Amino acid sequence: MAKYKIAFIGAGNVATHLSTEFKKCGHEIVQVYSRTEESAKQLTDSLQTTFTTSTETITKEADIYVVALKDSAVSQVLSQVDFKDKLLVHCSGSLPIKVLSQFAKNYGVFYPLQTFSKNRKVDFKAIPIFVEASSEENLHILEELANEVSETVTILNSEKRKSLHIAAVFACNFANHCYAMAAKYLESKELPFKILRPLIMETASKVQELHPKDAQTGPAIRFDENIINAHLSELKEMPDLQELYNSISKSIFEHHQEKQ
Amino acid sequence: MAKYKIAFIGAGNVATHLSTEFKKCGHEIVQVYSRTEESAKQLTDSLQTTFTTSTETITKEADIYVVALKDSAVSQVLSQVDFKDKLLVHCSGSLPIKVLSQFAKNYGVFYPLQTFSKNRKVDFKAIPIFVEASSEENLHILEELANEVSETVTILNSEKRKSLHIAAVFACNFANHCYAMAAKYLESKELPFKILRPLIMETASKVQELHPKDAQTGPAIRFDENIINAHLSELKEMPDLQELYNSISKSIFEHHQEKQ
Repeated sequence: MAKYKIAFIGAGNVATHLSTEFKKCGHEIVQVYSRTEESAKQLTDSLQTTFTTSTETITKEADIYVVALKDSAVSQVLSQVDFKDKLLVHCSGSLPIKVLSQFAKNYGVFYPLQTFSKNRKVDFKAIPIFVEASSEENLHILEELANEVSETVTILNSEKRKSLHIAAVFACNFANHCYAMAAKYLESKELPFKILRPLIMETASKVQELHPKDAQTGPAIRFDENIINAHLSELKEMPDLQELYNSISKSIFEHHQEKQ
Repeated sequence: MAKYKIAFIGAGNVATHLSTEFKKCGHEIVQVYSRTEESAKQLTDSLQTTFTTSTETITKEADIYVVALKDSAVSQVLSQVDFKDKLLVHCSGSLPIKVLSQFAKNYGVFYPLQTFSKNRKVDFKAIPIFVEASSEENLHILEELANEVSETVTILNSEKRKSLHIAAVFACNFANHCYAMAAKYLESKELPFKILRPLIMETASKVQELHPKDAQTGPAIRFDENIINAHLSELKEMPDLQELYNSISKSIFEHHQEKQ
């Protein structure tokens, strides 16, 4: 396998995990750019490499530049750098590949479908990675790179990747918000969040085998109006939770009707 | 440990798992009552015991009667049976213990906090069980029974159990609905649900250690309006998903503001 010199633009959750993983595979992380010194320093200390907080001093020496920034910052940062014929790659679910075409001749997308938090280890091998590139040759480089870190690599165009990202927001961010609302409610009743942990694990484990529509249980799918109304009445002191309870319960019931 | 003769009233998901577990611990399942022969027969075949579909022929021989029915059916079914001085127990998160007082002198609650599907094995030891009873003596019986099947047994009153049940609806049923909506959307785009499975597992695994408010990622918590608006626009062909996306994103953002 070819070993590359890789620079990271961004030092957030995705950059932290991905750069660490690339380094493990024997690639050289030549530099990390970040707007803030704090996050750049934290990451480059662990990678034993250098950082910059100025776009003007971004290295010319990398083979591949991996952009892991908030989508809205990508264009503004990249417009300040000349990537010449190097390979420029972003990691975003939502940004189409073509946003990179104005900044580089060789470009692509490397999208790991996972929720990253800085201090939490993840098993990268199990993370599906979706790649797309401006040419067959670039695609080959990104596929090879992805196959080194993951067991599930798929070529996916920007349109489908955007759909996948929307689905991921539901399955991850929104599911996590359901946990957060459960925690908020429990804590208001002086009960600890931790008692829900086995239930949360089993709920996720079930859909590793079942389709979620076959895994659903609870009052909404049974259309148990007594319980639903009792719960809504209990929640009247927390109108934000009451509103979510109402709209999600209705949606569960309607979704269940659809498949009859 | 005392070994009991236990009758089940109900043959649904909870009855199936709980009766199987009690049998494993050496208790005798003397009979299962169910309104429908099909589910009764399926369960009693596996338990090697008898069933009835008539409340009139519910056995007099059990020490403990475990009611695992839809909440709304409980009173109607129990009113047809004379439990004399036997121990009558329900498994509901929402029903207060006192609903049983009109049907028996000895009564209690045995609430396993888990999502059960008939054909899926669960590790009962990891399931928290919440008990409550009409007397110290009955509480002792239920605690002993619960300790045989689970490593986490807690005495909890009806009011707190109801709160716990509401939180469980958020953490389990609503989280699963987020998976279901993700699946629905992916399938409309001809992408398979299975690509989300590692993300779903990691989302649940994260909150085994972190608090969900510290685990949140994604566009809503970053208040990334570009992505949120792009997603809402993509979802306009599926108004039910669009509405959920909008209300849950707003709730995430507001919840995040609260903790600042």
